Amino acid sequence: MQFLDSYNSYIEKQISDIPFPKQPVNLYEPLRYFMQLGGKRIRPVLTLLGTELFDGKKEDALSAALAVEVFHNFTLIHDDIMDEAPTRRNQPTVHTKWDQNIAILSGDVLFVKAFQLLSNQKINHLPDILQLFNQTAIEVCEGQQLDIDFEKRRDVGLDEYIEMIRLKTSVLLGCALEMGAVIADASAEHRQLIYDFGQHIGIAFQIQDDILDLYADPEKFGKQVGGDVISNKKTILSIKAKELALGEQLDTLEELQNETNLELKVRTTRSIFDTIGVRQYAEDMMQSHYDKAMSSLEAIKVEDQKKDHLIQLAKYLMQREV
Amino acid sequence: MQFLDSYNSYIEKQISDIPFPKQPVNLYEPLRYFMQLGGKRIRPVLTLLGTELFDGKKEDALSAALAVEVFHNFTLIHDDIMDEAPTRRNQPTVHTKWDQNIAILSGDVLFVKAFQLLSNQKINHLPDILQLFNQTAIEVCEGQQLDIDFEKRRDVGLDEYIEMIRLKTSVLLGCALEMGAVIADASAEHRQLIYDFGQHIGIAFQIQDDILDLYADPEKFGKQVGGDVISNKKTILSIKAKELALGEQLDTLEELQNETNLELKVRTTRSIFDTIGVRQYAEDMMQSHYDKAMSSLEAIKVEDQKKDHLIQLAKYLMQREV
Repeated sequence: MQFLDSYNSYIEKQISDIPFPKQPVNLYEPLRYFMQLGGKRIRPVLTLLGTELFDGKKEDALSAALAVEVFHNFTLIHDDIMDEAPTRRNQPTVHTKWDQNIAILSGDVLFVKAFQLLSNQKINHLPDILQLFNQTAIEVCEGQQLDIDFEKRRDVGLDEYIEMIRLKTSVLLGCALEMGAVIADASAEHRQLIYDFGQHIGIAFQIQDDILDLYADPEKFGKQVGGDVISNKKTILSIKAKELALGEQLDTLEELQNETNLELKVRTTRSIFDTIGVRQYAEDMMQSHYDKAMSSLEAIKVEDQKKDHLIQLAKYLMQREV
Repeated sequence: MQFLDSYNSYIEKQISDIPFPKQPVNLYEPLRYFMQLGGKRIRPVLTLLGTELFDGKKEDALSAALAVEVFHNFTLIHDDIMDEAPTRRNQPTVHTKWDQNIAILSGDVLFVKAFQLLSNQKINHLPDILQLFNQTAIEVCEGQQLDIDFEKRRDVGLDEYIEMIRLKTSVLLGCALEMGAVIADASAEHRQLIYDFGQHIGIAFQIQDDILDLYADPEKFGKQVGGDVISNKKTILSIKAKELALGEQLDTLEELQNETNLELKVRTTRSIFDTIGVRQYAEDMMQSHYDKAMSSLEAIKVEDQKKDHLIQLAKYLMQREV
């Protein structure tokens, strides 16, 4: 997608220009390393698009856009410690390449960096931006805590699972867009609508993530298909399956948790999921959030043509196969 | 000290009123626990005094004062993980009472809470307050990283040691006071002077910490006298000793690092330190920073009587025996 490529390069260039001091090496070298690992840079692009939608200039939203990306990277560094993840984007995580203390502390500094970038915004926008950003940052932490809590629980319901992914990942997309709107002096109503658009796209994207993990084309999927099933991870599929499965199916799903033949485990789980209609349920739910996102965008009173980039981006996010 | 007690109770009450949500329990219960562990609450008191010095009302500085204390507690929670400290103020640390992931994440939330409190300040003060606070937060992290780095180095010099304690602990005292000054619309010159006052008091206090650890009256000292010597910790005493000790003294100090008779280790180290004048050197240096602090305060052009509380507090901090 041509426009996305050009916004991406713009952001990538600005990220590489963020000044990190030389000393202490153990504090800043991990940040230079991690910020250059790449990624889709969707969040800062959303801030720029959020501003442009309401006739703002993307340059005016740049430091807020970078703040969102920097904050996102801070959460990744700390989440990787908590999840004991050895790699991120096929490269060693900070706590693996350096050590855990360095990952905690350089994450903390990156968090301050996000606030430094935010503070560059015009003074009259600062209170709204700070309020939105602080609220979002707290919600992201709450989402991560719920995710950790859910690992130890066997009775997680669908609603609380959706609430967890909303907090952990979706609110930041809403925040990224709304910050752009604030900077373009959009109305309170428009701010809410663009926030809702981002939030529902985020939820739809996460549901799709759960579906793809089990149903992706192995040839195109970057990682092992069925990884969530193998690790008994809670997903929208597994939670809904527990709700819908009856008698024998439920027993089999239960037994499969301990199955050591992984190919059999994935294949049998998928077959039960198909029988009880879990995949369809998840796809309907994804579509429903996608539709809500589109309704929010439609309700925004600007010329249709100005919404093109956001619609393209939303479609792109939903059509991925990896 | 009567005025300090009353300011302390005021702050303590306000801290207990900070609203933390009920859910997720594992995120907020540790924060309610940790924020109630007490402590001298010196930093928020400094912000209130910084405002009153320049004829501001302490109520106007309250949320900034709480932000400083909340930030300080965030650093303690994360530092305790890095230092593997089992207790803080004689109570279990967060990562001990809960676990490490909870300590990382609840620390992160507390950090956001600090920014939320800061954001309550008047809009016209926000840019200056944010700039000061962000810069300080980064310096505190840098100081902590240097402290960690120094543990593994054998060639730490006196200047870099002082720079480390300046960053790790003293800049926050300067920041606390200067925020009060910003809120009272003090001049740039006065802001710098009150910052310097805080910073030098902080350095003097830390030097005194190093001295007391080896020279405190065991009857009055809350912990084991000589703890730093026993754990081969770098202090202003040990670093200066390496500089001043000659031949045999240097060899003995080196050998003492592995001495298992701890009483002998502390006694012999202290005796060498006394011989080569390390204690006197440290006390002179402490006095020099204290004097610089007082000169900064004197240079502030407000009635002398308005400086009373700050002078009392500085004296109180320097006269402690524990």
